[in-house]
Parts: sequence; C-alpha cells; structure tokens
Amino acid sequence: MKLPAIVGVPTDDTTQLMKKITAFAPATIANFNVGFDILGLSLGNMGDEITLTPNGTTENKILEIINGDNLPKEADKNCSSVVIRKMQEAQNEFIGVDIVLKKGFSSGSGLGSSSASSAAAAFGYNELIGKPYSTKELVAFAAEGERVACGSAHVDNVAPSLLGGIILSKGNKPSDILELPVLENLYAVTLYPHVKLNTSDSRRILKSTLSVATFSQQVGLMGAFVVSLYEKDYDLFSDSLQDLVIEPMRSLLIPKFKEMKQTALENKALAFGISGSGPSVFAMARGKENAEIIKNALEKIYQNVDISIQTYINPVCKGNGARIIL
Amino acid sequence: MKLPAIVGVPTDDTTQLMKKITAFAPATIANFNVGFDILGLSLGNMGDEITLTPNGTTENKILEIINGDNLPKEADKNCSSVVIRKMQEAQNEFIGVDIVLKKGFSSGSGLGSSSASSAAAAFGYNELIGKPYSTKELVAFAAEGERVACGSAHVDNVAPSLLGGIILSKGNKPSDILELPVLENLYAVTLYPHVKLNTSDSRRILKSTLSVATFSQQVGLMGAFVVSLYEKDYDLFSDSLQDLVIEPMRSLLIPKFKEMKQTALENKALAFGISGSGPSVFAMARGKENAEIIKNALEKIYQNVDISIQTYINPVCKGNGARIIL
Repeated sequence: MKLPAIVGVPTDDTTQLMKKITAFAPATIANFNVGFDILGLSLGNMGDEITLTPNGTTENKILEIINGDNLPKEADKNCSSVVIRKMQEAQNEFIGVDIVLKKGFSSGSGLGSSSASSAAAAFGYNELIGKPYSTKELVAFAAEGERVACGSAHVDNVAPSLLGGIILSKGNKPSDILELPVLENLYAVTLYPHVKLNTSDSRRILKSTLSVATFSQQVGLMGAFVVSLYEKDYDLFSDSLQDLVIEPMRSLLIPKFKEMKQTALENKALAFGISGSGPSVFAMARGKENAEIIKNALEKIYQNVDISIQTYINPVCKGNGARIIL
Repeated sequence: MKLPAIVGVPTDDTTQLMKKITAFAPATIANFNVGFDILGLSLGNMGDEITLTPNGTTENKILEIINGDNLPKEADKNCSSVVIRKMQEAQNEFIGVDIVLKKGFSSGSGLGSSSASSAAAAFGYNELIGKPYSTKELVAFAAEGERVACGSAHVDNVAPSLLGGIILSKGNKPSDILELPVLENLYAVTLYPHVKLNTSDSRRILKSTLSVATFSQQVGLMGAFVVSLYEKDYDLFSDSLQDLVIEPMRSLLIPKFKEMKQTALENKALAFGISGSGPSVFAMARGKENAEIIKNALEKIYQNVDISIQTYINPVCKGNGARIIL
C-alpha cells in the first residue's frame, strides 16, 4: 500500500495514518439570496459526523446511519461512500473503510443534509490517507456526492460545509472557490417546516429564463453584497441580500413564507430568504439577542398551524467548516 | 436670489460664487463586462469641458459646441443644458447660464460621450451654485442627460464620469453608487472603429431574456470580480471579467471583434470587451508597457481594413472623475 509522502510522518508508519477517524461537517445555506447555485454559508456547529475505520479490504461499507433510516446504505448510492470512492479512484489507491454516519439534522430540509455527509466523508477520508488534498481540492470530490443525492454537482453547499464561512463558487476548481469576509457578530436563524419538498420538485418550479433587466439588477446586488462584506457595511449587506429571481417562484411552495419574511424584517432581520431549495427559510441577524427575537417571532407564526417545525440559531463566522473531532 | 449657505463664504458675496466656471468630465467604459447597465469605469484624462457663465436671466443658452457640430444646440435637447435645468428645478432657483461645450472625443463611440457632457454640466453647475449636492447626489441629475441623449437614465457612464475609478451602481440613489477599489497600474486600451452604431440599435440586437444557468454564472463572475479588486488579485480580475450575456450578441455588430479579442488576450490583456453599447472595444492591461503592446497589436488588425480607427491608452485609478479646471 503506497501512501503519499508526508513531511514529518515516517512513510512506513502506516498504522498511525490508518487509525479510525471521526470527521464533522456542518449544515449550510445554499442559494444564499444573491447567488443561485453559487453562494452558500456554513451553519458551523450543527451538522453530520462520519466515522471511518479502515477495514483491510478495497471496499467501503456503510455499517450504520444514525438518525437517517430513510437514507440508502448501499455504498454506490450513499453520497458519503460515493465521495470516498471517487477519491480512491483519483488516488488509484483503495483503502476500504467501514462507515458510520451520524446525521445531525434532517435530510430534505434544504439545509444541505447530503452535502454535510459528503463534505464530512471527503474531509475525513483525506485526513485518513494523509491529506493529499487541500480543503479546496476536496470540493470537487464532495460535489460528486451531491450528484448522487440531488442529480447535479453544484458546490454551493459542499464548499461552505468544507471551508466554513461564506463561500462564493464560480466553478468547481480550487481557484474558483472564494472565501468571502464575514461580518462580525452575524447569526443565522433557520426554520424548517416539516413539509416534503425535494430538490428536483423545487427545481421544476423555476422558469428556465429571466429578463435581462432583472438579470442586471441581480448582478448588481451580488456585487454590492460582496462590497458590503469587505466594507463591513451592515446596511449595505441588508440592502443587497435580495433574491429577485428564484424566491418569487419557490416561495410559493413554502407555507407562510410571506408572513415569515415580513415578520423577520420587522424584527430587525438583516435579510430573509429560502435556504437551498427549501422548505427551510433563514433570517440573518446582527447579534444573538436579535436572532432570539426573530426566532421567537417566526415560531409564533406556526403556533396554530398543523405543521411541525424546527428552528435553529447558528453563529456565522470564517473557517467554521469541516473538522476532525476524534 | 437665494443661495445655499456655505461655510466660510459670505452669503451676500454672490458675485464670487457666480463667476464663470469650466468643468471637465471624463469618457467612460460602461457595461464593463460583468455588469450590464450597472458597472463602469472612468478614462480619467480624456473627456469633455463645459464652460458656464451666469447670464443674468433664468434661461440656459448653448452658445457653442466645439467639435460637436452634430449635437443639438437647443437648450431642451442638449443633455448638458437638460441636466442643468433639472438641477434648477430641484433647487427651485433658476440661475441661467451661457454654455460652451468642448467635446474631447466623438459622440456615438460608445465611450460615454453624452455622459461626459452631462457629468461636466452637473459638476460645473453644482460648483457654480455653491455645491448644494455631493458628487454622488449629482449622479441622478446627470442621468437625466442620458435620458435625453439615449432614451434611458442608466447611470453606469455618468457615475464613473462624476466619481472616477470603477463604479458599481445598483441604482440611482447615492447609497446605491459604490466606489470599488482599483488595481494598481491598471490601464485601459480603447479602440474606436468609425462605424455607425447607435445605442438604440445596439439595444435592439439584445435578446430580452437569458437562461437561469447563464444568469447564475454571470452573477458569480460579478462576485468574483469584486473580490479580485479587494484582494488585489490580477489573475482573478482577468479570470472573472467576462461577459457571457451581452457580448455574444453585440459583438456581431463590431467589425473584427473576434480577431481583436484573441489578439488582445494573446498580448497579455487582462480582459477584453465592448465599451458601452459599442462600437468601441477595450482591453485592460497591467502596466503602460503592456498597454502599448496591445494597442499596437490591435491597430495592426485594422491596417488593411477600410475603416478608420482611433485608439487611446488611459490609466485607470480612483477619483479621476469630474473636476473644475478653471
């Protein structure tokens, strides 16, 4: 078994490199208002854990998926094992692993469930085999998990899940993955209404074209959004973080969307929108106190509605992406 | 006659404020590849001059347009006098001026000819009446000149002509006008082929819709472009400054476009594109030496073509916008 040479680690000490490892990768908000398919942010402290144990064969095997009974356990169907297989093929080195996946939040929520598993798998396996890839290089591998789970290899969930913070991905190459500055004291409030809405349905509702006038405006909002991050300008952040294109269509699928948006903005939310392809929604808040107020106000809207919900508050900061936890 | 109070200038000393003034405003590249209708840059040292002399009446009169025989001299049709009238209406104070306009470059070139006149008029008249407006506030007035000259009040020429540098305008309000950082040692090479191509023709060739996929990519390029300016990243600047939407359509109207683009990029141009609605094209260069090489290479393409051309090299830097020169 040939391992990549690593400075400071004797190449014959394979056992040390090969020990069991547990990686964590966070939930994410993709399609982050101004960047459909290309902009996402990490929810940092909520996500999936994956434990990889070398099994002495060349095959990968999913032993258990905790909190994910509905997810496929076949190695060629689960996004985590597919990602690992892609990395093995790229390395032409097949260090088979037994996989235990612990889901930290619901799949189908629009919070990047498959991406968190894919990112954790890529990050964990990379560590296991001695880090041949930079974290940015892992994005393209993790995107292969997205292809299996959602039908297309968009990176706006996996990139922030791997790297943390707010990530603009103008493509899949490492040089296309841009880590944006993050405003201080920024919090994401997310609300997941338990309605079924899968990504492909959510894609189907989109019109395939848009007007040049709207296009132009939305491009300007993206530019202004990036400026707001570099200039630490909360007003401009709030003013620019608007989705003129996708939200008007997809919001129709989300119960109470309009009411939630209005309530959030009335309660000092800097922005409000759909997370990924929904049904979760998010509000951005300056400071934890504001985040709590927004969360409570949003929860009230669902008090007398026959749909159960989950709400979360997560700090948003740079570098809160995938990590090794054991 | 009531003048706005100005600190340090006695309010009764109206004659001092009312003396003849000459303002300059530069040519500009609008539709700057990644930002259709919303992104432009100033060419700084090439542009129009306007001389305003209070004439003791409430009417504005165009005495002369030097190098602009084809332009309207009626006060309600020339963009410069229209801008001044709008400012007078907003102030409800009609200090009539005699106007001499000296055009520094051709109208119909796609280098913001009407905008330079509009911006010079707004800047000069504002100075004359004691600067009641900030330069950003002048953008909306100057845009009224655009409305007369081109039929719509886009600000992507007038904003950089007034403010200088590279300006992202997500709207007409002062807070929508964002001054972006500018890379050091940046030069614009422009080539104006003398073919007739007016703005409304050039708008007609545009399709009115585009695909969501292209939209998404172009939004990503705008984001990446802004990142490149803040990060002083010339490679990313070059990589992101691409127009996927408008150029494929409009470039068909510009003779030798493909050949010029290829030649410019082979000669180290950071980017190449259509200036405004054409027919002028631009190349961005790092350093004056590269700019000269690109300019010479582009000129060669037109050597045996029966179209006369003009070429220019202008440094691009922050703050090189409208100014009082006399």
